[in-house]
Amino acid sequence: MQIIDLLFGRPLATSEERAEHIGPAAGIPIFGLDALSSAAYGPEAALTLLIPLGLSGIHFIGPITAAILILLLILYFSYSQTIEAYPHGGGSFTVAGENLGDGPSLLAAAALMIDYVLTAAVGISAGIGALISAVPSLQPHTLGLCLAVLLLLTIVNMRGIHDTGVAFLVPTYLFLATLLIVIVVGLFHAIASGGHPAPIIAPPKLPPAITAVSLWLLLRVFSSGCTAMTGVEAVSNGVMAFRDPTARNARRALTIIIALLIVLLAGIAALCRFYNVGATNPNGPGYQSVLSQLTLAVMGRGWFYDVTIAAILLVLALSANTAFADFPRLTRAIALKSYLPHVFMLRGRRLLYSWGIYILVALTASLLTLFGGVTDRLIPLYAIGAFMAFTLSQAGMVVHWMRHPGPHSTLRMFVNGIGACATGITTIVVLVTKFVEGAWVTALLIPLLILAMVSVHRHYRNISEEIACPEPLQVTNIKPPIVIIPMDRWSRISAKALRFAMSISNELQIVHVDSPDTDHGPEELASIWVDKILKPMRAAGFPDPKFERLKSPYRTVLMPVLEYILSEERAHEDRHIAVLVPELVVHHWWENLLHNQRSSLLKLLLLVRGKQRIVVINIPWYQE
Amino acid sequence: MQIIDLLFGRPLATSEERAEHIGPAAGIPIFGLDALSSAAYGPEAALTLLIPLGLSGIHFIGPITAAILILLLILYFSYSQTIEAYPHGGGSFTVAGENLGDGPSLLAAAALMIDYVLTAAVGISAGIGALISAVPSLQPHTLGLCLAVLLLLTIVNMRGIHDTGVAFLVPTYLFLATLLIVIVVGLFHAIASGGHPAPIIAPPKLPPAITAVSLWLLLRVFSSGCTAMTGVEAVSNGVMAFRDPTARNARRALTIIIALLIVLLAGIAALCRFYNVGATNPNGPGYQSVLSQLTLAVMGRGWFYDVTIAAILLVLALSANTAFADFPRLTRAIALKSYLPHVFMLRGRRLLYSWGIYILVALTASLLTLFGGVTDRLIPLYAIGAFMAFTLSQAGMVVHWMRHPGPHSTLRMFVNGIGACATGITTIVVLVTKFVEGAWVTALLIPLLILAMVSVHRHYRNISEEIACPEPLQVTNIKPPIVIIPMDRWSRISAKALRFAMSISNELQIVHVDSPDTDHGPEELASIWVDKILKPMRAAGFPDPKFERLKSPYRTVLMPVLEYILSEERAHEDRHIAVLVPELVVHHWWENLLHNQRSSLLKLLLLVRGKQRIVVINIPWYQE
Repeated sequence: MQIIDLLFGRPLATSEERAEHIGPAAGIPIFGLDALSSAAYGPEAALTLLIPLGLSGIHFIGPITAAILILLLILYFSYSQTIEAYPHGGGSFTVAGENLGDGPSLLAAAALMIDYVLTAAVGISAGIGALISAVPSLQPHTLGLCLAVLLLLTIVNMRGIHDTGVAFLVPTYLFLATLLIVIVVGLFHAIASGGHPAPIIAPPKLPPAITAVSLWLLLRVFSSGCTAMTGVEAVSNGVMAFRDPTARNARRALTIIIALLIVLLAGIAALCRFYNVGATNPNGPGYQSVLSQLTLAVMGRGWFYDVTIAAILLVLALSANTAFADFPRLTRAIALKSYLPHVFMLRGRRLLYSWGIYILVALTASLLTLFGGVTDRLIPLYAIGAFMAFTLSQAGMVVHWMRHPGPHSTLRMFVNGIGACATGITTIVVLVTKFVEGAWVTALLIPLLILAMVSVHRHYRNISEEIACPEPLQVTNIKPPIVIIPMDRWSRISAKALRFAMSISNELQIVHVDSPDTDHGPEELASIWVDKILKPMRAAGFPDPKFERLKSPYRTVLMPVLEYILSEERAHEDRHIAVLVPELVVHHWWENLLHNQRSSLLKLLLLVRGKQRIVVINIPWYQE
Repeated sequence: MQIIDLLFGRPLATSEERAEHIGPAAGIPIFGLDALSSAAYGPEAALTLLIPLGLSGIHFIGPITAAILILLLILYFSYSQTIEAYPHGGGSFTVAGENLGDGPSLLAAAALMIDYVLTAAVGISAGIGALISAVPSLQPHTLGLCLAVLLLLTIVNMRGIHDTGVAFLVPTYLFLATLLIVIVVGLFHAIASGGHPAPIIAPPKLPPAITAVSLWLLLRVFSSGCTAMTGVEAVSNGVMAFRDPTARNARRALTIIIALLIVLLAGIAALCRFYNVGATNPNGPGYQSVLSQLTLAVMGRGWFYDVTIAAILLVLALSANTAFADFPRLTRAIALKSYLPHVFMLRGRRLLYSWGIYILVALTASLLTLFGGVTDRLIPLYAIGAFMAFTLSQAGMVVHWMRHPGPHSTLRMFVNGIGACATGITTIVVLVTKFVEGAWVTALLIPLLILAMVSVHRHYRNISEEIACPEPLQVTNIKPPIVIIPMDRWSRISAKALRFAMSISNELQIVHVDSPDTDHGPEELASIWVDKILKPMRAAGFPDPKFERLKSPYRTVLMPVLEYILSEERAHEDRHIAVLVPELVVHHWWENLLHNQRSSLLKLLLLVRGKQRIVVINIPWYQE
């Protein structure tokens, strides 16, 4: 157990829960990594679509970023209100469920579950992909590196939320610090030079325009840029992880994350504009990421550049961690409503919802393995879930304000309504533009997941209705069971079983199967029957047990016994049939190979083919 | 089940055993294939060692074959006597065990088990190897073909011995017929031409002599030629498979097999001499087997040649079947003496010792896979086991005649003694000449196997001594058990368990673990305790059950329950503790994923960590 303790930390008692809770500073690496790392690919995604417009494309980055920032602010206010309204965790699943009903909440649940798995897989593979474009010699090890990062994330996360926050503090703040330095220095040069700074290393020249601007193009640019917003909902899901006062600490973390994201997005957009930096074709030769171009232009090549790029790679890979933080909380919330197995509600040794982590790791590992660690094809599937969840969450908040009128509730409803419309339109745009590329997979998976959750729910409801017992215990007609003892020969094990049987009932039936293949003849039991069993029992005033010898034409021992037990059950309608199964427990597992497993098989068969009134009593015999 | 019936035949009742028994004609393909197929490689193996002697080497094939035939005759008489003396199956294991003691019998058992597995693997790979040298394009599929033949053999054998005999009749007799025709026609030509027949297609010229003859060389030639004798013991192992009168039918089969083998070996040797056919270098270019050279010389190229070669290939591959016929009988005989798991004694649905077949197939498949279907390196491991078993069997027979004097017993003892000496010397020669090439593996495996068998035997003896119960049933001090019912909430399942508990004892303890992670609060049970449980029980005059609430700081439900049960067991030294484990049985396997498996885990934990006085009572609740 010591290695486990070293790797995953000692077990935590329920009473230590408070100590595991985190403040806003630790909340940023845990719940903000996904959102903040978006700054590394959101602007890039938008600029890539602007390549056909040439140099003039860069002029659009300003207005589009502004639109994105407005949407981001709407989302901020919305989620800030949500955290206040749902201090026990207000993910889209909860908000949609409370305000819109079961259907929308299941839609949000399915969309978010798929999105989190994709976040984990895409984050890891994007980080490793960036690492490989820096060190191409690692290419053959892509999948291995991805799985290694996954393993690392799993181990860190299995230690509990507190340790995770500590571990990810350094890379997160390094990423923020370097990018902010680039932005500040770049803007200083831009202002000092009157808007025309001289790049230290000039970015590649932009190609000439080959197409004219259109509304459809700008919509697509906007929707691609919106990937910068994925991960914003993470804090609202994880409110419960924060220290008291939970809602206030969570809101503070959300504020910091959004503020940082706005600074990063606005700063990057401004620098692109001043330095004339556009995206380069990611599939063409000489590809260089926008952030790399900006850093080179502002700071030149040197250790600072290396540190910045390293921090970006690290944060991309670790952004998968948001999925680790939220997926188990989401599945727990769904399980609480009985739409997923209840095992997702249980907290493991480090106070985590361990099964959520196991399932996330299993799905992510499968996805990574299936795609060999190159998850480019998964990116179109991604983001749809997040936007669907945003839309449902904000639509839910609109209903919430309608139902709970208060100060400014009309204004708030209006803000959320705008947000719902904007994200709703974005969802549709993303779905339409990316449908053929792979969004159809998500569109197919969501209804399947919903179907599964509905089946799970139906099962729980049926069982719970079936076993509900509103009436008190019935104490009439309680009779001792009829006890059936399958016996192959007379031994201490049989004697122990018989003594136990006598202690609970005086209607005993001993059953023996005549089988020619065992080493002790069928006559053995018959020969000792009177002397060793019947006489002592009679002497003690006990009624004679029944001795039943069964034929077995096909040599199986279990089938005749099973048939006999079932026929006895049918013959005694108001009685319990207790089957005594003696079992030899050996010292070492391999010794089990030396004994027939008839006891285990009989127990299994009785469980599968048995009836309500058949009860199995297991009499273990421990090897001395 | 219909596909299984079609593949393996319908189940056979024990009473149908007689019908499954075979006559001498079916016995030849079943028990003789290994011995008869030796004619295809025994002479070849001897002649290969004679290559360095050039043309003059062929002159030695006569005397050496004569020596082999004399040894074969000795073996024939020996085994013929063995069958008579041991009509219930007189394999080397039995004969050595009865006459020489446990050590030698285990040595024989280990040697034979290894040898049978090698027979199966080498037979199949030799057959496929010959096929591939005829159709080289099949080479990439070597392993696949080997496994396909193994599968075919398994299916045919799983149908039972009767069907196996029928299936292998045609290839066996085709092999015998074609070879006998070649021998008869060849000898006719030889005699007609006064000892110098003209070959239709001349065999390759023999290379010039490069070494002089030596005793060591002749010994090695003899020992290689002796591989022609492997498989001779098969009939004596399988006596029980023959129709009444078993011993006579078995002896008749043995006589026919040995007679045929003698004719084949003598005929081949004579033809080699007359047609000046020697072996060609098996690793050199233009390799051609001796039988192929002979057939071409006598019959020329044509359909007859093709049929002959095909029959040889087929019989080589099917010679593995002897292992299928004898390995399960051998393991059964060993299991009867408790040196192997007793499961080897059980007969399956087609009256076979199925587990022997499973293990043989598994080992053979592993061996074939490990060596990619090319088992050349295994051949040196082979034959040692057979000769060791011959030696032990005949040494055993010597002792047998000493102990059971009768008519001619001195002569018989003398014959067996000669045989024991000859095969003993051969064993040593084989072991010494092939030790480095691989025989050391067998020399290492045999003691390991013996060690394993001795451990198995010790375990069975210990258990059987421990559970032996010479005294009659003790009927004093029989008290009802203390019943412990772990209960998470009040439901029909708990009610059923409680009612059953009341029917077998009036000392009940209801145990509840306070766990914050379950959906029903810990208060639920406490709130209904008095009204729904205590009041009705009191009204029925039943003593109050104990209600025990356990704390669980680390949230596990099972550990506190387990500790409580163990402490109760310690507290009541003379009582049984019956733990009632209610279990929900759902309709479909996947529904189990929706419920905690605590019942199964508790049962497992109680079995592993329990004590003699703890009994588990399983109360199933079947979903309606």
